[in-house]
Amino acid sequence: MEKINIILVGFGHVGRAFFELLKTTYDACQFRYGLQLELRGIARQKGIMLLSSTQKVLSPSYFSEGELDNLDDWIKEITISDLLNEFNQGVLVDCTPSNLTSGEPGLSLIRLALEKGWHVATASKGALVLKPDELKDLAKEKGLVIKASAAAAAALPTIDVGQRALAGTEIMTMEGILNGTTNYILTRMAGGLDFNQALKEAQEKGIAEPDPSIDIDGWDTAAKMIIIANEVLDSRIKLSDVQVRGIRGINRDIMEKANSLNKILKLFGKCYQEKAGSPWKIEVGLALLERHHPLAMINGTSKGIVFYTDTMGWIAVSGGQSNPKGAAAALLKDIISIYRP
Amino acid sequence: MEKINIILVGFGHVGRAFFELLKTTYDACQFRYGLQLELRGIARQKGIMLLSSTQKVLSPSYFSEGELDNLDDWIKEITISDLLNEFNQGVLVDCTPSNLTSGEPGLSLIRLALEKGWHVATASKGALVLKPDELKDLAKEKGLVIKASAAAAAALPTIDVGQRALAGTEIMTMEGILNGTTNYILTRMAGGLDFNQALKEAQEKGIAEPDPSIDIDGWDTAAKMIIIANEVLDSRIKLSDVQVRGIRGINRDIMEKANSLNKILKLFGKCYQEKAGSPWKIEVGLALLERHHPLAMINGTSKGIVFYTDTMGWIAVSGGQSNPKGAAAALLKDIISIYRP
Repeated sequence: MEKINIILVGFGHVGRAFFELLKTTYDACQFRYGLQLELRGIARQKGIMLLSSTQKVLSPSYFSEGELDNLDDWIKEITISDLLNEFNQGVLVDCTPSNLTSGEPGLSLIRLALEKGWHVATASKGALVLKPDELKDLAKEKGLVIKASAAAAAALPTIDVGQRALAGTEIMTMEGILNGTTNYILTRMAGGLDFNQALKEAQEKGIAEPDPSIDIDGWDTAAKMIIIANEVLDSRIKLSDVQVRGIRGINRDIMEKANSLNKILKLFGKCYQEKAGSPWKIEVGLALLERHHPLAMINGTSKGIVFYTDTMGWIAVSGGQSNPKGAAAALLKDIISIYRP
Repeated sequence: MEKINIILVGFGHVGRAFFELLKTTYDACQFRYGLQLELRGIARQKGIMLLSSTQKVLSPSYFSEGELDNLDDWIKEITISDLLNEFNQGVLVDCTPSNLTSGEPGLSLIRLALEKGWHVATASKGALVLKPDELKDLAKEKGLVIKASAAAAAALPTIDVGQRALAGTEIMTMEGILNGTTNYILTRMAGGLDFNQALKEAQEKGIAEPDPSIDIDGWDTAAKMIIIANEVLDSRIKLSDVQVRGIRGINRDIMEKANSLNKILKLFGKCYQEKAGSPWKIEVGLALLERHHPLAMINGTSKGIVFYTDTMGWIAVSGGQSNPKGAAAALLKDIISIYRP
């Protein structure tokens, strides 16, 4: 049985879901994978809770994430760096919010973890799309890994499929519907709503953020496709390299035009080479899909990706629930994959 | 750079495609995965060709599979056992035909390889569905692996997705459209043909075998679902445990009934537990799918599988070309996954 130290940073929706998931899967991870996943501490803005020294959540079976909030054990006097020093090594789980402009706080956090000899599993996109060179080099130098399934469409498997299930093939192109909010809006517009009605409905349902720009302007799709490409194709694409167009300005006329052509309008992230051997390029924008396209029937908040290969043909993956639990499950999968034989 | 010995048994369509694929990917496997895949011999009914001692195909860049046929180097005097003894260890690639009654020649071959300390990658189903207990125990005892992607829907990723991409989840149910022939026939019947017309067309196109029983009576679907389940769920289901019904006897009335209900008729392999903790069961039979079912739009010779999980929701995978090249690519993937870090 291998004991794995886990430190969780960020205690919002995803961090809380990850905390609960670690508790419920604690025994199963031992039984199935021989991994004892020991949550050693949680860091958030209100302070740090040292779980091993408080003895309160040693085998994560006490307390719900809500009850943890009310404990007096959130310490302001120690830093994440202290917490990392306290244990040998393990996985830092980054559940901080994505910031596609500064990359923070994820960027500083990932740097710190790698410098201290910790692997990283992250649900946060900013650092990975702004500084792929620096972080890849640092991880390589230290012999550590940064796992990013949770940042790359979460419960929809993308990176594993490209790396493992398609090993030995040449991937020629990847296309993805990677953003649930825009896909929901386009699905509802195909059903007759106009853009503002569909956006408002998505906001009322909690699907779209109060400020939906990152999603509807295509940046979330771009970030996810970059993270997938940089892992699967070992490229080093940055957000500034990508041509991004979103769905703002789409109106009923455009939807009806698509319909009259018997095609389906989707927001697509596409990764391709202009010719074999030339650098990988990513574009995000609207695509008019034939009805038999493998992603044409991905509706509502669902997501999907298709890989075009030389020897296996095309492989499409769809589904994966778009919620904090799904993201937490992607983080857990990444931790297991770091350590399993 | 790690040198991996490969011995190929069976030189039909899949064996030949594997031979060609090994040649074309020889450099890429070194560059990408640090693996030098050295084909040491080919065994077939007309004899064995020792590639290393003939020095003819050492780095597999000479000769096409067709040219190999005409060489005089097929030796009748040595056995596969001799061939395995000649080298330390490696992977025996089993491209012999599937026999769901006797399991041979795959069964004897896999036993022999494991006894001699070789890993196995197989495209052949019989042994795996008739003797899962014996083969799993033997592999475990010897510390070896039997990889079976090529026997379990080949270029459609199934086992990897269940094992890797869904690690840490509880898989509750798996459903698959795993047989291209029956799916083609049902697709054409939905388009208006009757069973005999659709079967005849499939035979004329080379999709259905002259004796199509294994496919249309559901046995191929059953075998694939068993192989997937036994790997992904670590079960030990045998073909005799499975309730199998095929598509023989389906007529236009049934198709029209499905249509009038706005549903789609598919041949389904399903793996489930009656309740949590009870043994896994597999059934093969016709299923009436809602139009939004993740596999409802899998048409023609395409295949697909859907996994229902506790934490990630459902995940569907579809595509993967149904031909010898796709099966060869699945074998190559399995070899890579045995050795890559």
